[in-house]
Amino acid sequence: MSNKAKIVTILQQATEPVSGEQLAETVGVSRTMIWKYVQSLIEEGYRIEAVKKKGYVLQEMSSKITQHALDGYLKTNTFARHLHALDSCTSTQKVANELILNGQAPHGLLVVSELQTEGKGRLNRPWASTEGKGLWTTWVVRPNLLPHEAPPITLVVALALAIAIERVTSVKVDIKWPNDLLIGGYKTAGILTELQATPDKIEAILIGIGINVLQTKEDFVDPLTSRATSLQLASEKPINRTELLAEIAGELEKAIDKYELQGFRPFMSEWEKRSTMIGKQVTATTVRETIQGIALGINEHGALLVDTGDGVRALFSGDVTLSGKLDS
Amino acid sequence: MSNKAKIVTILQQATEPVSGEQLAETVGVSRTMIWKYVQSLIEEGYRIEAVKKKGYVLQEMSSKITQHALDGYLKTNTFARHLHALDSCTSTQKVANELILNGQAPHGLLVVSELQTEGKGRLNRPWASTEGKGLWTTWVVRPNLLPHEAPPITLVVALALAIAIERVTSVKVDIKWPNDLLIGGYKTAGILTELQATPDKIEAILIGIGINVLQTKEDFVDPLTSRATSLQLASEKPINRTELLAEIAGELEKAIDKYELQGFRPFMSEWEKRSTMIGKQVTATTVRETIQGIALGINEHGALLVDTGDGVRALFSGDVTLSGKLDS
Repeated sequence: MSNKAKIVTILQQATEPVSGEQLAETVGVSRTMIWKYVQSLIEEGYRIEAVKKKGYVLQEMSSKITQHALDGYLKTNTFARHLHALDSCTSTQKVANELILNGQAPHGLLVVSELQTEGKGRLNRPWASTEGKGLWTTWVVRPNLLPHEAPPITLVVALALAIAIERVTSVKVDIKWPNDLLIGGYKTAGILTELQATPDKIEAILIGIGINVLQTKEDFVDPLTSRATSLQLASEKPINRTELLAEIAGELEKAIDKYELQGFRPFMSEWEKRSTMIGKQVTATTVRETIQGIALGINEHGALLVDTGDGVRALFSGDVTLSGKLDS
Repeated sequence: MSNKAKIVTILQQATEPVSGEQLAETVGVSRTMIWKYVQSLIEEGYRIEAVKKKGYVLQEMSSKITQHALDGYLKTNTFARHLHALDSCTSTQKVANELILNGQAPHGLLVVSELQTEGKGRLNRPWASTEGKGLWTTWVVRPNLLPHEAPPITLVVALALAIAIERVTSVKVDIKWPNDLLIGGYKTAGILTELQATPDKIEAILIGIGINVLQTKEDFVDPLTSRATSLQLASEKPINRTELLAEIAGELEKAIDKYELQGFRPFMSEWEKRSTMIGKQVTATTVRETIQGIALGINEHGALLVDTGDGVRALFSGDVTLSGKLDS
């Protein structure tokens, strides 16, 4: 943990002001250095008040994602231990791609941007990435897997993400196969996985995760976002983005480690429990065809099984809606 | 075809000097422009002689790969119709990756470099890329295929490459599964395919092809290359790299179009005929294990079938040697 992260953690846990002397002793640096660290934290957006004769009080966490703020919450070995934080970019997937090309993307790297000018979802669909209100992220992972073992990663990530969000918000999160999270039927988060591989080996998987966190009702008026909601709207409580991100890092690391060792089988039943469509009549549109039938479940390769009445089909990707609904 | 390519083609096909007037008429530009084009071609390395009172004679093709020289030979719709030619680079795969990121890599793009400072084969093994003596290339293709349909592409490319090389050199070319071409047991070319995909769609396949073309015996003295040969050494005749590249472009385009429409099945028997190992006792080392058995053939997914005596295994990648040989 960096010294700044230590200071933030101490102030966060304190119930009364902490003196510069106490901080200096605990962190193991001089009081002058403590003062400098605090100034630097204030510049980064933390509201830290100096109460006369008593010490420092943390009034508000920084609104920006920083490595030392994250470090205060992280319990991971590798996930989010390297952070590439930006104010603005075209898309975090593109930035991650560039970092990979330049040899600057270790396993677990997190790319996060306050604003994306060209955020994209599956099939190049636009993704609204309002400044500072969401978590627009890409995680670079380099699992020891073969290329054909990559497809279930999207589902493993969806489940990990649902668990992390539920823990922080106390709101129930559903999964819409293959890559969306819904709260009460409204889209809250989306996942876009990109694979880079040779026939022998996965070079990298770029896991793009976009989460609506702090948006208000006014942010969801245009048609692109009218079926969406934010965690703050849904949970009716303030959300600390840094804390949420650290929780996600922990769940992602655990889930991907487990998938590497045990495959998709141990995820299947919990995944199916959260699914919006199992047992229901659905219409599935893939890049090649449209089929209708009952969604039976998923198989160990992450494919959605649809009983068309004429046999069971295994779908690896596509858009699935509950029949009779335009959007679900 | 560019005007310069037209001039090169006319001069190549001519059995006697061609006058500036004739050229001007055929190409449809002024004699002054013809003179300018010829000067520009000479600067690029073409040896064009002006025979007094008679006209121009092409003495030697340019040694460099240029778009208009290629255009003189190409019969393709898209392959090599966009050329990114470099004198030097780290690797053409890396350059192609950057062009993809910048949105400058249409389907069929050919990246070629006279020299690679960090040429790589499978599993990051070094690949010797002597200046000006090989064809160090990456082809960017964007086929209408799903990610799981990508693996056989390496084998489809190997076959197309063998056919193109045989046509130009008249020397028999064998395929060593999965990605090498051999002449008389010596390595002549290698293929490295990299996939970029989302679950719904292949974004791009980067087909790296390295071919030893003009090397002499002295180029193959160090251990890295001692089991290698060049097309010129093997065929004992001069090879025009541009002509070879155009032939490869044609065969690749045909093969990948066919694979898109019909899958791998129509390639299987011709592929097996050229294989160095079908019917033989082999040792196969994959990233996870080593197995021994008889190589039976390949299946429609491009996997090598090995009968271990204990059942038939389907291998998607790995190193395979004929048993009892250290290298084959």
